[in-house]
Amino acid sequence: MTLKNDRFLRALLRQPTDRTPMWIMRQAGRYLPEYREVRAQAGDFMSLCQNPDLACEVTMQPLRRYDLDAAILFSDILTIPDAMGLGLYFAEGEGPRFQRPVRDLTAIRQLAVPDMDQELRYVTDAVSLIRRELNGRVPLIGFSGSPWTLATYMVEGSSTKTFALVKRLMMAQPDAMHALLDVLARSVAEYLNAQVAAGAQALMIFDTWGGILSPLHYQQFSLDYMTRIVASLTRERDGQKIPVILFTKGAGPRLADMADSGCDALGVDWTTDLATARQLTGDRVALQGNLDPATLLTNPEVIRREVARTLDSYGDGPGHVFNLGHGITPDVDPEMVSVLVDAVHGYKRQ
Amino acid sequence: MTLKNDRFLRALLRQPTDRTPMWIMRQAGRYLPEYREVRAQAGDFMSLCQNPDLACEVTMQPLRRYDLDAAILFSDILTIPDAMGLGLYFAEGEGPRFQRPVRDLTAIRQLAVPDMDQELRYVTDAVSLIRRELNGRVPLIGFSGSPWTLATYMVEGSSTKTFALVKRLMMAQPDAMHALLDVLARSVAEYLNAQVAAGAQALMIFDTWGGILSPLHYQQFSLDYMTRIVASLTRERDGQKIPVILFTKGAGPRLADMADSGCDALGVDWTTDLATARQLTGDRVALQGNLDPATLLTNPEVIRREVARTLDSYGDGPGHVFNLGHGITPDVDPEMVSVLVDAVHGYKRQ
Repeated sequence: MTLKNDRFLRALLRQPTDRTPMWIMRQAGRYLPEYREVRAQAGDFMSLCQNPDLACEVTMQPLRRYDLDAAILFSDILTIPDAMGLGLYFAEGEGPRFQRPVRDLTAIRQLAVPDMDQELRYVTDAVSLIRRELNGRVPLIGFSGSPWTLATYMVEGSSTKTFALVKRLMMAQPDAMHALLDVLARSVAEYLNAQVAAGAQALMIFDTWGGILSPLHYQQFSLDYMTRIVASLTRERDGQKIPVILFTKGAGPRLADMADSGCDALGVDWTTDLATARQLTGDRVALQGNLDPATLLTNPEVIRREVARTLDSYGDGPGHVFNLGHGITPDVDPEMVSVLVDAVHGYKRQ
Repeated sequence: MTLKNDRFLRALLRQPTDRTPMWIMRQAGRYLPEYREVRAQAGDFMSLCQNPDLACEVTMQPLRRYDLDAAILFSDILTIPDAMGLGLYFAEGEGPRFQRPVRDLTAIRQLAVPDMDQELRYVTDAVSLIRRELNGRVPLIGFSGSPWTLATYMVEGSSTKTFALVKRLMMAQPDAMHALLDVLARSVAEYLNAQVAAGAQALMIFDTWGGILSPLHYQQFSLDYMTRIVASLTRERDGQKIPVILFTKGAGPRLADMADSGCDALGVDWTTDLATARQLTGDRVALQGNLDPATLLTNPEVIRREVARTLDSYGDGPGHVFNLGHGITPDVDPEMVSVLVDAVHGYKRQ
């Protein structure tokens, strides 16, 4: 099955494209009324993730509305700890929680890499189904949370502002933290490779909470593990390269070190200009980003202006995938996403 | 009245000191049992801020326990919008809220600079009282929130993760946002000068939320207004310089531009190493920071190691004030603060 639109994959590999490809983080999400309908039908959020038919349906929804250059598997970043037995659930309006958080070496030693064919079969089944449904229209992105980001939720047990428990474990019991990150890194690598085997054509690792660490701790407890994962991923299948994107929210100057991880591309949030990100990474990797999602709450004029500023900031040459700097929020009017897509497609460099 | 310990002021002016001075952001706070006692006596948080005797008492508490080189006025960053009539209150466990948020140009045009002698008299009365009570032991820091940070709370009306309302106003109605920031900048300048007139010996502007903006928006909507404030502050009184510290949480590479604001010193959080901050600012300003507050949740060995790493990172030469990279959290054992103070005092450069 030939890929009809390979702009996204080409841009990630820093190859020329006819125009800048784009997709939108969390493009299958609550801002879409048709998503909310399926979500209501599924019951809770995890039931939606665990039903391959419904996960496939919501993955396809944004592609029916918008001319996007990639699809992304509909799933959650916390499927691995859930499969490890921690009991993921979502308290209404409170973000993810675990019934059984992991807070000491004894609990950490009991964790094992989940069986991808059993506990995480619903994910690879969804990947296969989506690939069939896409029928070569655009490539499919598989993804996982980073070991550090998974660890923050596993130790804290819920969302947190201070990250007190996970940082205490990291600083006071670094060996325990490394044991946790080690089993997570092995799990993430197997998980992403299983997604590739099922049909994922690009991979992205979401490190939502790496940016809260000091530079040294970031290197030791987040980036080193992502680097190790990148080294053990399937990077080619059926003669096609499988590009890997790393995204640390709030990475800032850390982008320079991230570019040495062996990945193909870096996600960039809006707190770093793409021009700066390009200087920091010296064109060693492609860049993905970085419009502030709040821009979509304004009006067409502002959206067009900010899109142009984003594309101008990247400048000439290949290697840019347009995206938001973080996920689209539920309060966005789907009509403004049409404006965004048209603005990116219609952009002419000054 | 002679100042018996001027290490803090000298370091802010990049003059040599016998050892690195230190204080702790939020040093008068909930981690101290004696603070919790006074707080319970006062009733709600704002009643404590608005009672000069009690504000003076809690300001003095950490100095009775620890050998610190500065006192900081006990108050809240949101006193100005409260004095503008927005009705500040604290919902239990939810952070600050305003009864009457400000969301359009009409509401913004009704805002006026508060009368410092009337609505904010409780602040300057507390400053005078604390100065008398300190009796020259250490200098007293006055402070305010930055215009941008005040604006985020005034527009959102409560804490937020996405800053949707304030960013929409900023991007879709920049003139309205500039009108709001203008009245806030004039208010902050008057407020800080009133604190100096009452006895404050150094000033700090807390820009808690500048780091969530893109570099261009940060410059236009946060730093430009802080720069304007710095230019209109009283910088000398009774032959003593009044140093000014700017602190943007998550400033990262923005520290370079901040150093051009005319301030004397920059607060640095733990996500930027002091060595990097020093390179970025080229020794044009002093630096204050930057231990991760979560370090205080560990143990004496880790605290001593991380303190040494922080002081080593700054390196030789004057111009460093040791501090945390953000406020101390309520879950810290006061005994660990003694360990911290001893570690900073006992530090010998390798």
